[in-house]
Amino acid sequence: MTREELKMYLSFAKRVAKKAGKIMLKYFDEDQNYHYKEDKTVVTEVDEKINKMVISEVKKKFASHAIDGEEEKSGKSKYTWVLDPIDGTAMYRNHIPVAMFSLALVEDGKPVVGVALDPFTDTLYEASLGQGAYQNGKPIYVNKNYLEDPSSIAQVDKWPTATYDLYDVEKEIGKKTYLVTLGSIVHAGTLVASGGFTLALFPGGEGKNCDIAALKIIVEEAGGTVTNLFGEEDRYDEAIHGAIISNGIVHQEIVDLIKEKGISKNN
Amino acid sequence: MTREELKMYLSFAKRVAKKAGKIMLKYFDEDQNYHYKEDKTVVTEVDEKINKMVISEVKKKFASHAIDGEEEKSGKSKYTWVLDPIDGTAMYRNHIPVAMFSLALVEDGKPVVGVALDPFTDTLYEASLGQGAYQNGKPIYVNKNYLEDPSSIAQVDKWPTATYDLYDVEKEIGKKTYLVTLGSIVHAGTLVASGGFTLALFPGGEGKNCDIAALKIIVEEAGGTVTNLFGEEDRYDEAIHGAIISNGIVHQEIVDLIKEKGISKNN
Repeated sequence: MTREELKMYLSFAKRVAKKAGKIMLKYFDEDQNYHYKEDKTVVTEVDEKINKMVISEVKKKFASHAIDGEEEKSGKSKYTWVLDPIDGTAMYRNHIPVAMFSLALVEDGKPVVGVALDPFTDTLYEASLGQGAYQNGKPIYVNKNYLEDPSSIAQVDKWPTATYDLYDVEKEIGKKTYLVTLGSIVHAGTLVASGGFTLALFPGGEGKNCDIAALKIIVEEAGGTVTNLFGEEDRYDEAIHGAIISNGIVHQEIVDLIKEKGISKNN
Repeated sequence: MTREELKMYLSFAKRVAKKAGKIMLKYFDEDQNYHYKEDKTVVTEVDEKINKMVISEVKKKFASHAIDGEEEKSGKSKYTWVLDPIDGTAMYRNHIPVAMFSLALVEDGKPVVGVALDPFTDTLYEASLGQGAYQNGKPIYVNKNYLEDPSSIAQVDKWPTATYDLYDVEKEIGKKTYLVTLGSIVHAGTLVASGGFTLALFPGGEGKNCDIAALKIIVEEAGGTVTNLFGEEDRYDEAIHGAIISNGIVHQEIVDLIKEKGISKNN
């Protein structure tokens, strides 16, 4: 892909993100109609509205591309737009402003363009292959911390139907560093990219490439590392095997810890 | 204490909170000078600045009252102003906008007035004994959820030197509900008061009455319950034994769970 193509796709993704952010803000104070997906996680009508909007925009502009939205999919192609319309739906539904929108263009399984928007603080993260990562236009970089460093903060995500059980891993990490769980992995991942967090762990599998695809390119363009929980590269246009999102420095330590705790890939 | 006295103390607390919020915002983007307390948690110069400001305001207005600030204390009295200048210092220091200010007037160990301010969204929570709890002037109430209810969210706090180890408890709760840890117990507690969260657990002891004193009155005036981890009433002008901050409905279930997991009061 040429630099000009990357630029065009990134510009499209940013435009769509801003549109999504407006929808998120518009309905934030309202009580949402919501229902439960097969995995018992929540989805609101706003998730579906944003998902539909992105599908429509992609179809208009790049008719041959596929779309893999957390709430709805369309087509099959070398190029897939992978999106999470609202990452942190449980918080959004309860009117707590931490949720984010995320969208990536994935080429043959590999994210090449990614954007993530926090509409509540109007903070846009963007990255494209080889072009660096930016927060509202300013270059961002991961921090250089070890876990034990006093300014480290780590996030471990969890939910009742998550594919992997990371409690033992969390307990071990919690001996070394301050632990949080903001309620949106995209929010945590962008904080890894911009240096606020050292690490974020994600225990999702089926359908959860939608949560991580944009982070993969944003965090790596900021100098960090994103792999599955077993230190391997996943494709981001199909089910993943959890995610380790880190500043790079602590990555192997976490891969080793997950192995040590006997967490198995095919849970 | 008369209703007029409560009103006067509440009005003072709100004025001081607004002053504290301005200081928090002023220095938020700057890189903070910080050091570590005996328990290895972080304190910035901004914490100390706000602590000093509150001591000075109390001394001017209520010379006979004591002050128990997380960073500095002064005097001994039936009346103690208990404050946490920045709750969520680790997040504040890393420029992540979730920290809050909190201040309570404690009479003979019992909070009678409490305020908590989120300066980033300009949200002020207030309560006084028998007068209800308010968010920016609007009455607030805890939710009516059980843990298993799909709109429940629970927070479990943790840090490397916390007095109590709640990982086993967290794992059990995590089977039933969505778990987060925002990085500020005051933030989580105010969300319990306003119905966004169902439960927040806090594993702190020595010096940690400063984190919970204002929440005790705000959450209970909103219809919820705040006790130590063993279901007992603590004094809030001395060390506490952790805290369960809940909507009331799930309270006993959590007391039972903590007992079942063998967590002992004198850790």
